[in-house]
Amino acid sequence: VRTYEIATIPGDGIGVDVTVEARRVLDAAAAEHGFALRWTEFDYSCERYSDTGAMMPEDGVSTLSGFDSILLGAVGFPGVPDHVSLWGLLIPLRRAFSQYVNLRPVRLLPGTTSVLANRTADELEMVIVRENSEGEYSTLGGRHNQGQPGEFVLQESVFTRVGVERIIRYAFELARTRSKRVCSATKSNGIIHTMPFWDEVFELVAAEYPDVAAEQCHIDALAARVVQQPERLDVIVASNLFGDILSDLAAAVTGGLGMAPSGNINPERTHPSMFEAVHGSAPDIAGKGIANPVAQILAGAMMLEHLGETEAARAVDAAVEKVLAEGRVATPDLGGEATTEQLGTAIAEAV
Amino acid sequence: VRTYEIATIPGDGIGVDVTVEARRVLDAAAAEHGFALRWTEFDYSCERYSDTGAMMPEDGVSTLSGFDSILLGAVGFPGVPDHVSLWGLLIPLRRAFSQYVNLRPVRLLPGTTSVLANRTADELEMVIVRENSEGEYSTLGGRHNQGQPGEFVLQESVFTRVGVERIIRYAFELARTRSKRVCSATKSNGIIHTMPFWDEVFELVAAEYPDVAAEQCHIDALAARVVQQPERLDVIVASNLFGDILSDLAAAVTGGLGMAPSGNINPERTHPSMFEAVHGSAPDIAGKGIANPVAQILAGAMMLEHLGETEAARAVDAAVEKVLAEGRVATPDLGGEATTEQLGTAIAEAV
Ligand SMILES: CC(C)[C@H](C(=O)O)[C@@H](O)C(=O)O
Ligand SMILES: CC(C)[C@H](C(=O)O)[C@@H](O)C(=O)O
Repeated sequence: VRTYEIATIPGDGIGVDVTVEARRVLDAAAAEHGFALRWTEFDYSCERYSDTGAMMPEDGVSTLSGFDSILLGAVGFPGVPDHVSLWGLLIPLRRAFSQYVNLRPVRLLPGTTSVLANRTADELEMVIVRENSEGEYSTLGGRHNQGQPGEFVLQESVFTRVGVERIIRYAFELARTRSKRVCSATKSNGIIHTMPFWDEVFELVAAEYPDVAAEQCHIDALAARVVQQPERLDVIVASNLFGDILSDLAAAVTGGLGMAPSGNINPERTHPSMFEAVHGSAPDIAGKGIANPVAQILAGAMMLEHLGETEAARAVDAAVEKVLAEGRVATPDLGGEATTEQLGTAIAEAV
Repeated sequence: VRTYEIATIPGDGIGVDVTVEARRVLDAAAAEHGFALRWTEFDYSCERYSDTGAMMPEDGVSTLSGFDSILLGAVGFPGVPDHVSLWGLLIPLRRAFSQYVNLRPVRLLPGTTSVLANRTADELEMVIVRENSEGEYSTLGGRHNQGQPGEFVLQESVFTRVGVERIIRYAFELARTRSKRVCSATKSNGIIHTMPFWDEVFELVAAEYPDVAAEQCHIDALAARVVQQPERLDVIVASNLFGDILSDLAAAVTGGLGMAPSGNINPERTHPSMFEAVHGSAPDIAGKGIANPVAQILAGAMMLEHLGETEAARAVDAAVEKVLAEGRVATPDLGGEATTEQLGTAIAEAV
């Protein structure tokens, strides 16, 4: 039987709760569709950092590189500075494995209502193609004159031609399989070195896709458009930071953060891709059995799709939709009283 | 009679349309409250740039510095690159006049409905205190290896202790006059040099205001909160870029961009402050008489307030509310058929 080697990093907080349920559902799908997932669990987390001083061991990247895919829960815990936990695990993995696409589809799932008034599900379907390897997140920069009146801090954003071109090209290819519309998030009126460059590359790539409608929108106006005219949006391509903001916002106007999956994708498949929920570790509700596992389960479906198990991926999607539409088993954020495990089990059974 | 010297820069597009109406309303308020506004109009604009190669003359800043206040329309026109028009006028003025606070109140005005379902006006009232002089908008950086495969572009964000501290302090002072709650927009998990520094200064200043509740929220989660739990927000303090995004978003969930005013404020009054709408020049609808002048009129009210004419400012606010509540005179974006001039005139008469 076809077997995939999957590394799982539950991480911190509710990452642990929801990863268990995703495994349950994916195993059910595998059994049903004639393949197997062999799971290897890693304890890379803030807890590990507190014990050992490192989020992951020195050979973490090389260990993980042998797997077919990675399923990541969430990282972050009070007491460990965020920039330590994220730059000690999530961000280096995205970069080491050249997962330069962060794919974040959002849609209104059955049984959920949008915070926006009078919107139908098809007006609220879009996908954020977020640049995941460079941009505003960078290690370059530093602090000068510490403790002096003239103290200042610099942060360098880095945009390369290679990096900008490949993410924009990915968005246009994706648009060909969907609505044939791409909107680029920019801020070339305020940010004068990097964003006009981003626009320039966008226009060059767009010219190669005459069949795809290309549009540019400043990030401030685009955030407004997500809530005012979501029906005008489908594929959005955005830098690392802008994509981060837009995907949380888009998730919030559709089913909420409990429902939004995310794939850190290496399109050339030279390294493993990594799948996670858009939401964080939510330490305040961790371990209480009330976290919504849907985002993580849908991230698992994206993983199956990436592995080529398209039918199994569709089955997971369909099972999620069925259980949510019935509404009998729902976690508190969905207005129900079910536990994380009950919702996971119901979806696994529906598969 | 008390007379204020006001410079007005209508700028481009609908900036011209709405500035006329703001003047009409402010003159009515002045007449009613026993003072006068002496207007001097400047043609600084993209049109001027096309004719002369400069958005404003070399002595533009020194000319404007003699005024009590500046009323700005909007800048930007197709054909003139945005980074040229903005960095040739708006941004240098904000900096030259040390208008380091960009104050952006939002609220749901009568006669308008929120795009959010089931929200009352008092859940939707907040103010964004945006840093206006440094941060992500900077001239530092540049392009390397132009046209080569290894091409890259750098953009430097600059946060100074002086700059961060003064804007955060302004937010806490403002919170004392309102809800006594400040939420700081951060991204210290992704942006590792500048945002942890911002957080550090925030915590230091917050400690001086034990009577004000201080909270920090990552920009992605905060954007989600604006649409999911706006009632939890009141004073938001944010960097230049984050404040730009949040204020468009917050305006979009309340009355829309046609209603959101903005003050570029020099709190020490060493230089003139400048008032403008949050919206842009919207060249597609310019000169058609359909632009909504309310944002610009409310920006004018903020100007009167800043000049110390509090009663007149209140009267303008009240007149706007009255005319909108009646709903008889409304521009197309408000669901009516009135022209920009008709709405401006109705508000002037109500004053
Ligand atoms: C036009 C642009 C540079 C400007 C900004 O981002 O500051 C505008 O969006 C604003 O909000 O005033
Ligand atoms: C935790 C943080 C660094 C991360 C990011 O901004 O990339 C998260 O918000 C996400 O969206 O995956």
